[in-house]
Amino acid sequence: MKVCRRETFNAAHRLFNPEWSDEKNLEVFGKCSNPNYHGHNYVLETWVEGPIDQEIGYVIDLKKLKDIIRNEVTERFDHRNLNLDCEEFKQLKPSAENIAVVIWNLLRPHIESQLNLSVRLWETENNVVEYDGK
Amino acid sequence: MKVCRRETFNAAHRLFNPEWSDEKNLEVFGKCSNPNYHGHNYVLETWVEGPIDQEIGYVIDLKKLKDIIRNEVTERFDHRNLNLDCEEFKQLKPSAENIAVVIWNLLRPHIESQLNLSVRLWETENNVVEYDGK
Amino acid sequence: MKVCRRETFNAAHRLFNPEWSDEKNLEVFGKCSNPNYHGHNYVLETWVEGPIDQEIGYVIDLKKLKDIIRNEVTERFDHRNLNLDCEEFKQLKPSAENIAVVIWNLLRPHIESQLNLSVRLWETENNVVEYDGK
Amino acid sequence: MKVCRRETFNAAHRLFNPEWSDEKNLEVFGKCSNPNYHGHNYVLETWVEGPIDQEIGYVIDLKKLKDIIRNEVTERFDHRNLNLDCEEFKQLKPSAENIAVVIWNLLRPHIESQLNLSVRLWETENNVVEYDGK
Amino acid sequence: MKVCRRETFNAAHRLFNPEWSDEKNLEVFGKCSNPNYHGHNYVLETWVEGPIDQEIGYVIDLKKLKDIIRNEVTERFDHRNLNLDCEEFKQLKPSAENIAVVIWNLLRPHIESQLNLSVRLWETENNVVEYDGK
Amino acid sequence: MKVCRRETFNAAHRLFNPEWSDEKNLEVFGKCSNPNYHGHNYVLETWVEGPIDQEIGYVIDLKKLKDIIRNEVTERFDHRNLNLDCEEFKQLKPSAENIAVVIWNLLRPHIESQLNLSVRLWETENNVVEYDGK
Repeated sequence: MKVCRRETFNAAHRLFNPEWSDEKNLEVFGKCSNPNYHGHNYVLETWVEGPIDQEIGYVIDLKKLKDIIRNEVTERFDHRNLNLDCEEFKQLKPSAENIAVVIWNLLRPHIESQLNLSVRLWETENNVVEYDGK
Repeated sequence: MKVCRRETFNAAHRLFNPEWSDEKNLEVFGKCSNPNYHGHNYVLETWVEGPIDQEIGYVIDLKKLKDIIRNEVTERFDHRNLNLDCEEFKQLKPSAENIAVVIWNLLRPHIESQLNLSVRLWETENNVVEYDGK
Repeated sequence: MKVCRRETFNAAHRLFNPEWSDEKNLEVFGKCSNPNYHGHNYVLETWVEGPIDQEIGYVIDLKKLKDIIRNEVTERFDHRNLNLDCEEFKQLKPSAENIAVVIWNLLRPHIESQLNLSVRLWETENNVVEYDGK
Repeated sequence: MKVCRRETFNAAHRLFNPEWSDEKNLEVFGKCSNPNYHGHNYVLETWVEGPIDQEIGYVIDLKKLKDIIRNEVTERFDHRNLNLDCEEFKQLKPSAENIAVVIWNLLRPHIESQLNLSVRLWETENNVVEYDGK
Repeated sequence: MKVCRRETFNAAHRLFNPEWSDEKNLEVFGKCSNPNYHGHNYVLETWVEGPIDQEIGYVIDLKKLKDIIRNEVTERFDHRNLNLDCEEFKQLKPSAENIAVVIWNLLRPHIESQLNLSVRLWETENNVVEYDGK
Repeated sequence: MKVCRRETFNAAHRLFNPEWSDEKNLEVFGKCSNPNYHGHNYVLETWVEGPIDQEIGYVIDLKKLKDIIRNEVTERFDHRNLNLDCEEFKQLKPSAENIAVVIWNLLRPHIESQLNLSVRLWETENNVVEYDGK
């Protein structure tokens, strides 16, 4: 049985490789390398897999999962500049893929170890990524 | 190859453990334990997996799958109080997880045995569960 | 200039006329008259119309509008049985139309009088109503 | 008859009043005043109202309307920092309301004068504004 | 008070002017003039405006409105070729605008005359039209 | 890590078995066998699975994936009659299942072989299929 909580956050970011010239960055990352940043409404689906605890009828209480996501993820990234404000992306490009890995690593210690975890992150209505720790 | 039909139903429910005090129920289930019930627009995705039958080009005729879902699930639960009107939840808490298990068990006998079945149930736009019989 | 805040709440309700027989109620209201209630995920759009206050760039601060809606509407109706738990519907059928009128009347005193107000309420993904006080 | 074309763009922005202290800005604009910006996936609906030209069956060719929107609006704002990169917001706070006014003014000269124009701008899935030039 | 019912239908169509050459048609209508037709999932919102009848709590019973829409519109156009199968478009280009006018004229006699009627038709997720009889 | 690009196309089609009578086709395929075709707005999700290339932070550049999808799929099928205009469906029924297989086969040679590929195709908002090459 898998269960999911959907949350959102809004952030600015920029993709570039500091070892490359501006031209190379523009060539590889296109508009995403604009030096003054752009931004997205990120939609995060957090999926947890495990057996139903029949005392409560839940795999995990989605209200508690919501609190974990808000404490660990949305408080940290909402209305932030991922490149400038967030330690996690000082060395790491804030691509959707890398943001998903960072989020998975932030959530994993707060989900009981016998439960599987995966995250799905929508950067736009047309671009999505999914990560399950492997 | 997997195929899916999406259907909806609207129902009232309440989560509580009859062996617990009202205080304990409120503590564990929060607003979901309100004694007079609340309700949801449930969205049900029914996924069937198997090979394409090239005589018709389908894994399963989605019109027939729609009829199965309506006969077995939405006729039964639509515009009902899951706790009071539905035998399936006399002993079982109508959490989204348990509703998904009940729906899977209702549909399984009507889908040919060589086809895999899973169901995804949206309780709200932010809370979803998924069950494949395991 | 019009601005809108979208909020949601989940509630149980039932439509029936206490002066009518069960048969007449079933004939007029169909499944909506089921005696044990059913429920919906209501989606509420609150629209406010007026000039932009250029000191802040807003018609109305949507964070404040969100707080008003939560205090006056969603705290009151979320996870409730509209017929049994809510004074507003002791004498009034909780049809989508009447819920919209009640919500408009609850919100109107909290929005400055020079601003116009209208509300749009989705009962299901296929049924919507809209009320602007007239 | 009204017709609409929907387009999207992604941008960073920040709300603050340069005449106020950081504390006052934080108090008024909350997280929206974060100095390093945040961002959104903006969704823009452009509505044009007028009679049907029966030679083509259109009020306005939506392919041409799409090109106007892309040339005048999305090319200008997509993957930009509205505060830093866009002349239009050097003196004007890039609130959703003001962005809608700027967009309306950019589009108006390119739509025939006998046709009415209004724009609806979604900043998030919960916050929307609408402007028709009045 | 306005109320709305949302229904869908799927149809093929083609836009062309029989008095023009193929080249002119391609120039004006682009891919929409492809001689072998293309198609859409049309989404139809039917809005009715009037006072609430407090005996039932409705402006109009949305179940009855649904039946009217299905009898008059979706039965007629669903899974059809609008150009070849539908009398309404023998002389009229099946543009979204014209389809909306035809639908409005089909529905108007079935809605009580003191109620206002408007229709909104989505041809794609990005193209929409709206008609209220004027 | 999985990443996805969402694209859309609009096409006409018809389901029928040329070896069957009209009656048998109507019995099996219902309205989908209407001789003059009907149509859909198809929504295509293309999912690619593989490791993140940390030089760019991507599994695959979604701009490049978008170009591949547009060149190989949407250019080919958008605003077409799948039965009449497309070689791929001269011998093959254009059911959603078969369209998904054809799309997978068109995309597979353009995605690096160490990356997994699956496609999800929405024919309507209620009917979906998914294919991963097995």
